[in-house]
Amino acid sequence: MRKDHLLTPGPTPLPPQVCEAMARPIIHHRTPQFQAVLKQANEGLKYVFQTSGDVFILACSGTGAMEAAVINLLSCGDTALTIQGGKFGERWTEICRGYGINAEVMDVEWGKAVEPGEIEKRLKANPKIKAVFTTLCETSTGVSCDIEAIGNVVKNTEAVLVVDAISGLGAIPLATDAWNCDMVVSGSQKGLMLPPGLGFISVSPKAWKLVNSAKSPRYYFDLRAAKKALDKTDTPFTPAITLIIALCEALRMIREDTLENVFMRHKKMADATRAAVKALGLELFAPAAASDVVTAAKVPQGIDGEKLVKTMRDTYGVTIAGGQSELKGKVFRIAHMGFIEEFDIIAGISCLEKVLAQMGYKFQLGAGVKAAEEIFNKTVS
Amino acid sequence: MRKDHLLTPGPTPLPPQVCEAMARPIIHHRTPQFQAVLKQANEGLKYVFQTSGDVFILACSGTGAMEAAVINLLSCGDTALTIQGGKFGERWTEICRGYGINAEVMDVEWGKAVEPGEIEKRLKANPKIKAVFTTLCETSTGVSCDIEAIGNVVKNTEAVLVVDAISGLGAIPLATDAWNCDMVVSGSQKGLMLPPGLGFISVSPKAWKLVNSAKSPRYYFDLRAAKKALDKTDTPFTPAITLIIALCEALRMIREDTLENVFMRHKKMADATRAAVKALGLELFAPAAASDVVTAAKVPQGIDGEKLVKTMRDTYGVTIAGGQSELKGKVFRIAHMGFIEEFDIIAGISCLEKVLAQMGYKFQLGAGVKAAEEIFNKTVS
Repeated sequence: MRKDHLLTPGPTPLPPQVCEAMARPIIHHRTPQFQAVLKQANEGLKYVFQTSGDVFILACSGTGAMEAAVINLLSCGDTALTIQGGKFGERWTEICRGYGINAEVMDVEWGKAVEPGEIEKRLKANPKIKAVFTTLCETSTGVSCDIEAIGNVVKNTEAVLVVDAISGLGAIPLATDAWNCDMVVSGSQKGLMLPPGLGFISVSPKAWKLVNSAKSPRYYFDLRAAKKALDKTDTPFTPAITLIIALCEALRMIREDTLENVFMRHKKMADATRAAVKALGLELFAPAAASDVVTAAKVPQGIDGEKLVKTMRDTYGVTIAGGQSELKGKVFRIAHMGFIEEFDIIAGISCLEKVLAQMGYKFQLGAGVKAAEEIFNKTVS
Repeated sequence: MRKDHLLTPGPTPLPPQVCEAMARPIIHHRTPQFQAVLKQANEGLKYVFQTSGDVFILACSGTGAMEAAVINLLSCGDTALTIQGGKFGERWTEICRGYGINAEVMDVEWGKAVEPGEIEKRLKANPKIKAVFTTLCETSTGVSCDIEAIGNVVKNTEAVLVVDAISGLGAIPLATDAWNCDMVVSGSQKGLMLPPGLGFISVSPKAWKLVNSAKSPRYYFDLRAAKKALDKTDTPFTPAITLIIALCEALRMIREDTLENVFMRHKKMADATRAAVKALGLELFAPAAASDVVTAAKVPQGIDGEKLVKTMRDTYGVTIAGGQSELKGKVFRIAHMGFIEEFDIIAGISCLEKVLAQMGYKFQLGAGVKAAEEIFNKTVS
């Protein structure tokens, strides 16, 4: 009779409408039926990306879409600036270097957000930088950075701004066009409430110029072929049909709710989670730049962080995330993204309290849940 | 009240067990639960690939897995032999050239199978060929080629043999190890009875040597990273969780049925389809090398081939495939692959008869279905 609760920063829980869509008999992709699906998906994606440009749907996970961004923009020997404040920022550097691109790394202390002014300095110091690779929400640390401000810096240069919005798109504000983001990359298993398996990528007019001149080898991820196909409401290769049909359901839900409400819900869940964590006497890992997507909290002294996460999951069915890379065992992360609401957060905090108590951590039982309830029950002012 | 019948060479119809698996709540991929799934999937894949080596699961469509084969084996400037007897053979050439690999093309007339002896000659004439890229079943023409014989040729050289078995794996015989196939590439939406979105790739010890020395840039598709992860029952990037869970269901069905029965069923359906087509006075497109996966037949004179396919689909709900590239309008293709059985074929032939009759083609109504029934009702000798 175990009941599972998923509070992880990807995959996030699936709405029943999405599950139902995936259980339908499959349709062929070169049919008017599927063209209607593709058209609807693309319109919904433009709404969520807040762009009037094309958003491409790739059959891959988020990392594939990140690779697509790098190889469609740059050539071997080009220079890029990669902002590295966690595991996913590092991925930009790794991909660039894998393709012989000279990645100038801007290291940001894990748990801090990058200073847009620092990016400006680097761009001035090295006019050879052709692209700046950033992360909207660094899932490994729970930090969000100010993409709008970075966009204001990068737009005045020759460089393009690329945003990894895998965590964050459809959960926290990101205005692709208004914020001058030249490429925004995302994935299906986070704010979009789907299983993993789809990557998304938007392309600005400034980015298209690079796409058309870049010399990195590419075939499966070639956006020129994707564009040619999309103009005929088609895909260059067999698309992940079932996931795209499910995407339509998820996008329909988001549009019905409106992005404004979606963002508000995420903000409230984040506020409540942070309040709960603090009420339990725990410390936020990134107090100054905490993301509304996932909350990272420090594991208190004397408590085994890996055991905490494991017990919550294996004994009580509540899956949160532990720390990654250098944060392994040092933080735990509670996601509040996608198809998660108020009472999921309450359940998650309650389970955290239960296991912390069992592990001998001293606090007032119920304090976390109470703090969260206070946020949720506050009338919107 | 429209009821759809899918007789296309990918996607193929989904078994209800697969649909049900995809409708389940999602689980997280870094958990013992998912590790058990991954382990089961890998064991099942080894059975279907008939290999003792690793089979990697990639989140991409078949073309992505083809690209993975090319870039993990070869470097810019290397020479490869690509066998081109249709649209998918051409894809090998395009991918190689996209990565600066010198593709020596062996053109085979569309509708004919490559002669293994010709491959031997080319390998002798040019010892610089490091890889031979072939296609088990060329979906665009309905031709199968003799991979076993090609394997016997290639194994005595320095070159590796790469087989695109996207169409054919889990439907017609392919013994990866016994036939000396160094890399076999496949996809989920054909014999494996799943939606598109997963790519598969096996690697022989001979191929591993090249994988470890190849210099093509790669990150998302890097099999060295995939191997490192698989050795810990993990994946380097977020896997397509839902599709992999569904894969377990499909593999379980195949194992319960046994590959022998699966192959026999496909052969019988192919025999029946070919007999039906001939009984209608139609000509097979590839009589000498017809695949047991998909039957291509010539559109008779005076009949609009595209309209035939469109009417069957849009008016009667029976989706078969038309011709691709140079065969557009000239052939139609009926798939008998995956979760398709006897009575699906009967329904498909019956609909073909209905629309041919409406379009004014002269034949004896019922002749196709009768010929198919005769094959299906024959006792196994």
